[in-house]
Amino acid sequence: MPVITLERKVLEKNDAIAAALRAEFDAQGTLAINLVSSPGAGKTSLLERTIDLIKNDLRLAVVEGDVQTDNDAQRIAAHDVPVVQIVTNGLCHLEAALVRDALASVPRDLDLCVIENVGNLVCPAGWDLGEHAKVVILSTTEGDDKPEKYPNMFRAARVMIVNKIDLLPYVQFDVERCVAAARTVNPDLVVFRTSCTTGEGLEEWTGWVRGEVIERERGRPRPC
Amino acid sequence: MPVITLERKVLEKNDAIAAALRAEFDAQGTLAINLVSSPGAGKTSLLERTIDLIKNDLRLAVVEGDVQTDNDAQRIAAHDVPVVQIVTNGLCHLEAALVRDALASVPRDLDLCVIENVGNLVCPAGWDLGEHAKVVILSTTEGDDKPEKYPNMFRAARVMIVNKIDLLPYVQFDVERCVAAARTVNPDLVVFRTSCTTGEGLEEWTGWVRGEVIERERGRPRPC
Repeated sequence: MPVITLERKVLEKNDAIAAALRAEFDAQGTLAINLVSSPGAGKTSLLERTIDLIKNDLRLAVVEGDVQTDNDAQRIAAHDVPVVQIVTNGLCHLEAALVRDALASVPRDLDLCVIENVGNLVCPAGWDLGEHAKVVILSTTEGDDKPEKYPNMFRAARVMIVNKIDLLPYVQFDVERCVAAARTVNPDLVVFRTSCTTGEGLEEWTGWVRGEVIERERGRPRPC
Repeated sequence: MPVITLERKVLEKNDAIAAALRAEFDAQGTLAINLVSSPGAGKTSLLERTIDLIKNDLRLAVVEGDVQTDNDAQRIAAHDVPVVQIVTNGLCHLEAALVRDALASVPRDLDLCVIENVGNLVCPAGWDLGEHAKVVILSTTEGDDKPEKYPNMFRAARVMIVNKIDLLPYVQFDVERCVAAARTVNPDLVVFRTSCTTGEGLEEWTGWVRGEVIERERGRPRPC
């Protein structure tokens, strides 16, 4: 079946580039995270709030992925951190080669590299970008059944952020049910509950990021 | 470039099956619509409300597409209409051959066939399922910038439904800006504003459906 063969070849090539990227991140002691979600779950807003909380003590850069427009990169640039926009022109996910090429435009020697993927809860699950963790953001307005309906993404992620918790009074969303469903497919999933409007949960989330950065830097190979 | 060649072949094959499906819908005087959106925009809720408003005077059936689970088909079945679930097992969109096979399980001689696609604002834009209209649902919690960021879907659709308008007081969403952005890529887009919680806009939306059904039936070839 030629489609499957070809797809496997494309994925194998992607995985090789991703492995090289991860080795480079490791050598530089850089934590790389890949933000994934449906369109409009709040990836960019969460990233803006995250940047404001950590940019004074962590050196970071952002790679933005969008099907069209550089709106998100402009929003991030307003927070005075290096950012590069990848416009995929219709492609439904980022690939490692796109990220590798984009990284040529941002400084090295970073503590943290955040890749914001295309808004899509399906396709980006299968594409390794060299990150250390996929962070899936699910907003309360999307429904608590999403981990059951899109299990691959919740299986691929290390962290789930339940976002827009300020809207819980106005929507039908059972956080406990959602977390239980997500942990059915991924028992080790780390979970945060956030609101970018009220700021709730952001200290916990950025605390996790700081902890991971420190862990990564401790494992960094020291120059001779 | 073999990937592009293969993709074109796959799409050509899909388009041929879709054309045959559309011819069959036309011969039967059936209106076929393809509901597309991000995960959690409210496709299934809108469909449930739509069914309750029209099922007494229109013969309809539903094809449900999901990456995993038959939750949505169960919700639809509770409204006493014929429904068939396609579980794509990871595939990020429905294809015409899947719909053709699914239709073998529902009655013919329908006024309306509703296909609820996989929740994905990117990939389903490029796949013709033999429908007469793609209907894109965008919820107010997703942000008013989505037509700019995912233009292919808004270009491919005949109708845009701005859903969850009951949440407008709690989110930053400019309906006029959103509609203007959508009509920049698709000037002929028909727009409805709905809430499945309050019922607002549902009469207008189902009115459009009824009008399209009548138009389709008038064009139906009469048996000799």
